[in-house]
This record gives sequence, C-alpha cells and structure tokens, in this order.
Amino acid sequence: MKFNYNMPTKILFGPGKLNSLKKEKLPGKKALIVISAGNSMKSNGYLDRVIEILNSKGIKAVIFDQILPNPVKAHVMEGAKIAVREECDFVIGLGGGSSIDSAKSIAVMAKNPGDYWDYISGGTGKGKPVENGALPVVAITTTAGTGTEADPWTVITKEDTKEKIGFGNADTFPVLSVVDPELMLTVPKKLTAYQGFDAFFHATEGYIAKIANPFSDLYALKSIELIARYLPRAVKDGNDLEARTQVALANTLSGFVESTSSCTSEHSMEHALSAYYPDLPHGAGLIMLSEAYYTFFASKVPERFISMAEAMGVNVDLLPENERPMAFVQALVKLQQDCEVDGLKMSDYGIKREEITLLADHARETMGGLFTVDPYSLSLEETTEIMKNAYK
Amino acid sequence: MKFNYNMPTKILFGPGKLNSLKKEKLPGKKALIVISAGNSMKSNGYLDRVIEILNSKGIKAVIFDQILPNPVKAHVMEGAKIAVREECDFVIGLGGGSSIDSAKSIAVMAKNPGDYWDYISGGTGKGKPVENGALPVVAITTTAGTGTEADPWTVITKEDTKEKIGFGNADTFPVLSVVDPELMLTVPKKLTAYQGFDAFFHATEGYIAKIANPFSDLYALKSIELIARYLPRAVKDGNDLEARTQVALANTLSGFVESTSSCTSEHSMEHALSAYYPDLPHGAGLIMLSEAYYTFFASKVPERFISMAEAMGVNVDLLPENERPMAFVQALVKLQQDCEVDGLKMSDYGIKREEITLLADHARETMGGLFTVDPYSLSLEETTEIMKNAYK
Repeated sequence: MKFNYNMPTKILFGPGKLNSLKKEKLPGKKALIVISAGNSMKSNGYLDRVIEILNSKGIKAVIFDQILPNPVKAHVMEGAKIAVREECDFVIGLGGGSSIDSAKSIAVMAKNPGDYWDYISGGTGKGKPVENGALPVVAITTTAGTGTEADPWTVITKEDTKEKIGFGNADTFPVLSVVDPELMLTVPKKLTAYQGFDAFFHATEGYIAKIANPFSDLYALKSIELIARYLPRAVKDGNDLEARTQVALANTLSGFVESTSSCTSEHSMEHALSAYYPDLPHGAGLIMLSEAYYTFFASKVPERFISMAEAMGVNVDLLPENERPMAFVQALVKLQQDCEVDGLKMSDYGIKREEITLLADHARETMGGLFTVDPYSLSLEETTEIMKNAYK
Repeated sequence: MKFNYNMPTKILFGPGKLNSLKKEKLPGKKALIVISAGNSMKSNGYLDRVIEILNSKGIKAVIFDQILPNPVKAHVMEGAKIAVREECDFVIGLGGGSSIDSAKSIAVMAKNPGDYWDYISGGTGKGKPVENGALPVVAITTTAGTGTEADPWTVITKEDTKEKIGFGNADTFPVLSVVDPELMLTVPKKLTAYQGFDAFFHATEGYIAKIANPFSDLYALKSIELIARYLPRAVKDGNDLEARTQVALANTLSGFVESTSSCTSEHSMEHALSAYYPDLPHGAGLIMLSEAYYTFFASKVPERFISMAEAMGVNVDLLPENERPMAFVQALVKLQQDCEVDGLKMSDYGIKREEITLLADHARETMGGLFTVDPYSLSLEETTEIMKNAYK
C-alpha cells in the first residue's frame, strides 16, 4: 500500500456559506471573475453578491463572461489576456464546472507564454512543462456536478480539432472553494440529474481505478451512498435544501476522489462524444455509456462492484454470490429511472452508430491516460464494443 | 450542516516511501532537522538517510537534537535561535510527535519575536496573534501516535508552570509529510501500544466532539476500525509490516480528524496529568482515563457510541438497544487487554488521589477550549468525578 495524498484546497461548506467569504483572507487585490455567457450568475444575484464581498475587502474585480457549457480554448486565451492586461493577481471561477475549469486554465495562461495547447498532454497537445505556476484560483460553485472545486482538473475543448482534454497540476487546485447549496436551488431538474450523475461516476470510476487508495475509497463510497439516497429527491424537488446539501457534499467528495484516485476510460469515451457533439451534456453522455460500461467491468473487479452495490443500499447478503457484482449495475439503472434520465439516447443527439469506432479511437487518442488506470486493460475492439452496446 | 475543511498537507504514504522524498520539491535550501535527545534517529540510520537525500538535492542541513519525550518551551526557543542564526529556510521534524511538534513551534518562533508563550491561548499564555507566519515544515514520522504529520497542532510544556498546551494555525500544517511504516518497525512494544491508543482517542474524541462533520466522521470511523483490527497485531509482533502500515494509516487518518474536528476534554485531562508527571507517557495517561471518560459520555451521545462500537467490529444488532452504547466501552476495554495495557495505574506514576481535584481544575484552566467542544458541558465536579473514577 503506497500512495501520495494531495488535496490542499480549503473549503467553506454549507447553506449560506458564501457569506463567510467575507471573513476569509483572499489571495490578491484584483480578481478576474470568470462566469458563463449565460445570464444566471447575474439574474440570480450571485455575481453582485461576490462583487460586494470583494468591495467590502477592498479588492477590485474585472468580469469575464464568455464561458460556454463546454468551455473552449479561445476563451481561455482571451480570459488570460484580460487578466494580464488588467493586472489581476487572482482568478475567481463562479458558476458550474465550465466556469471554474476555465478559471483554472486562465490562471495558468496568465502566467505562462504561448498557447494553452502547448501544455496539454494527449492528442495534438505539445505536453510542455508549465514553468511559471498559475495565479491563485478561488472557486465558488453553483452546481453539484464536476467536483472541480476540490480537484486540480480542468477540461477544455480545442474547437478546430474537437479535442476535449483534461489538464491540471499542483498549482491548479483552488486555494479556496465555497460550496453553498443555497446557490444550487435554481439549477433546473434535468441539469441537476446530469450533474449528479457526473459526480456519481467520478466516485465509481475512482473506486474501480487501479490507483485507488484507502482515502479515495472512503470518499468514493460515501459519495456513492449520498447520491443514491439524495439525488432522486433533489431532482424531484429542487428546493429540497437537505437533498441539495447532501448532493453537494457528495459532489465535493467526488472531487476529493478525482484528486486522490482518477477517472477511468468511461470519461475518455464521453469526452469523445461531447467533443464531437457539443450539445450533449457531459453528464448525459456518461449516463448513456454507463450501463454497458459497468456491465463490462463487473466481472473484472467483482469485489469492488459488491462494495459499490452495498454503498447504494443493496443488501447483497440476500443474493447468490455470482449475482452480487451485477447488483450494482441494477441499482444504477434503478437510480437512473428514479432520476428520470433512463430514456437518454445517443441517436437523439445526432450520434450515428457507424461513427462509434471512430469515436472509440478518438477517446483513446485524446485521453488515453485514463485507459491506463482501468482495472482491466481495454483493447480498441473492447472499447468499441462497450460504446456500441451503449448505443440506442 | 456547515463547516470549514482545511488539511493542505501533501502526504507520501507507504513502506519505503522515505526514498520518494528524493523526487519531491522541498521548500527551501537549508533545513533545520529537529530530532529527539535520544539516540534512535542516529542508530537506526534515519538521520543519515535524510541528510543524504538533502545532499543529493543540494540542500544543506543543521541538526538540533535536544527534544524530550514531553517537549519543552526552552528547546523551542533554542531551536528557533539556531534556525535564525544558521539562516535555515525550512524545518524538518524527524521522529515521533515530540520532534515534529517541536519543529512546528520552532518554525513559528524562527519568524516571530518574543517568547513562545506570548502566542499561546490558555493558562498563562498571552494569546497574541502570530503576525509573521512560520517557516515551512516537513514532517517525517517514525511513530504512529500523534497524527501531527496531518494536522497543524503542536503541544509544548512550559516547564516552570507545568502547563502543557496545544497550539497551531494555518501556517503550522506541514507542507509535506512522509509516513513510512518501515521506519516504525523498531518502536518498542509498550510505546507501540501507547501511541496507537493516542491515535485511537484522537479519532474517538473527534467523533463525539460537537463540531464533528461528515469528513471528520469518515476519517474517525475508519481510524477506529483499523486500530481495533491491527493494533493488537502490531503490539504482538513489531515486525508485522502489514499491521504497522494499517496502524500508520489509522494514525494519519486521526491526524485528519484533528484537523477537521477536535479533541475533547479527555485530552485536557491527560495533559494535566502528564504536565505534572512528565514521566507519564501521553498515550498511557489517555488509556488510564478512557474507561471512566467514555462510560460518562456513553449516555450523552448514544448514537455516536453505537457507531464507534460498530467500527470496532461489534455486531450491535445482537444486543438489547439500551446496551448498545456501552458496547463501545466494553470493546475498548477488550482492546486494552489485547494490547496488554489494561493494567496501567495512575498511582504507579506517583499521582495521588487527593490531587485529582487540583488536576481537574488545571485541565480546565490550561486547556479549557477542548471542554467547549464536548458533546455535553462538564462541570468541575463532573470533571473531577471522571478523573476519580479513573484513578487506580
């Protein structure tokens, strides 16, 4: 048993916690606030609240409000240019995963020369080392999906090559994150489900990954338990603050999983889908893949699947031994029904069956790293088989 | 549910991990290495190994080898003086809790004026704010007891007033810790047991503390489970590397508990005992207090006690409901028998029954803060009653 543990982010967690930001020491005097191109951060008043807190601390702010749901490299470069020009000394990501991920990438490019893709490993990325670190990042999350507030990762798409690749290092952990479930009450039903499942799969992938360790296991099983128990409630009634709080906690826990273990090839496969079909929400793509993906792996690491089934509340002792691993897959399908996302189809987003081999190949080319931590080494044929089995 | 989470230390965990220090970026160019006044760091070759690693990275080292098992303020001040004079830019604590705690306190006093006790809250401490932070601390732990490698706390005794008081802030978390169970194989039987129980009580106190949160609960229950399962094996056979590794993990987990929750009044009571009787090992003092302490609290937070009993492997479903909380105390007594520490007596260390009221009062005076996080607010009478019930 050997591992390195690193999750240095300080986290303010709980309903109303945004107000506590007033009492925290922030890492600079002028912030670039990164938000989405949509209107919700403004219309919900979250942006004004953050600016007011900064003002009360004598901190200036510049707004960059261009981020797309699948964030793109052009906006990373543009945001970094503004940060440099305006002499911002830290970056605040306010919103969902796309805004916070963009904030991290902007923080890197505000301190390093060249193009963002120079530093990306995989695909057409040049894999150069990041020499100058990054501006400090503060994350204020308004969704419960990516766990990015508690991990170093950022996922950005290169528009022309349709590559959607993850990146991160010790400098891209947020120094401080606010997880205030009150800010999540307005997330629409469908997105609540998609994001909740994204968090769920961060936990399940991190649990079956071969680099899992006792810390990531603790976080993962708790996250799985909480999502199985509370996500249906949060989907059913968005104003259920207790359910929102528990799902937010599960999501932060799965960020810890991503910091201490790793996503597996399920995420690579999904990134291929949503890089080619940017209208496909990441969480929805994962849901579409999941039954086939976990059915394939159930026989590879059966003990891990039994533990995940138990975390979801299945009493495995009542089942014959050979049926226990697949009890997780059955519980997963049931959870999708309870969250009203069981009818999702790739074909509804325009994905064609005959493209699957190409997409499987793309997944391995651009995010091959995640395949190396799978508990069983997939061939291209097996990757294609899983994705074909998932196709509807 | 509201809490702040902060445990920024990076940890290298596992057998042989000391060697990985070579690959890590260290936080300076000249280290003060703080070790005990005993000979074990030298005779076991650990000091030479650390110096060799530093040399290979072009880092200079100065040794300060004066630390006592119950570390004292005079050595903090002396170590800080050497660090300043030698222009050390970081501090390495190598050894058990006393060396690492001293390293933290030295790191503070190397950057701040006046006397260490100026910054202490409680007792005769002046409670001044620490204005200048601390030198970065690297912890290399050779025991599994205090969890100090994963928390900001340091406990130092002021010799003349016999005050033994904890201290710590965001700057006294180690930036990097090495937890290599191979370095723990030489810890003698008795100390293995005392230190293991110290870690155990960090977990149990942090679990019943009223500021416990979902993260500290995860860490605490896992730590309790691992110690119950592996400490008897580590005590029985010090060369059982698997048992040493699991106990080391439990200890690191209970450091996480101390970072995210808090010790309770049990620790204040023990600090009073070992401040007046410095020959009493801290872990032994806790063991002496524990049966009476947990018997008192079992009825105050019964659900918490049932969870702790379950973590220790008790099948509580087989017990009548009203007996379940005390099942934890019975399992604790059994664990003490299995670790051959059930016969410890205060009187064997010279403590007199008629001093108990004075010691109870001292506990409340010098470390009153921990009483405020107890799940039930103890009066002086009740504090005295617990300590009298513990007296043998």
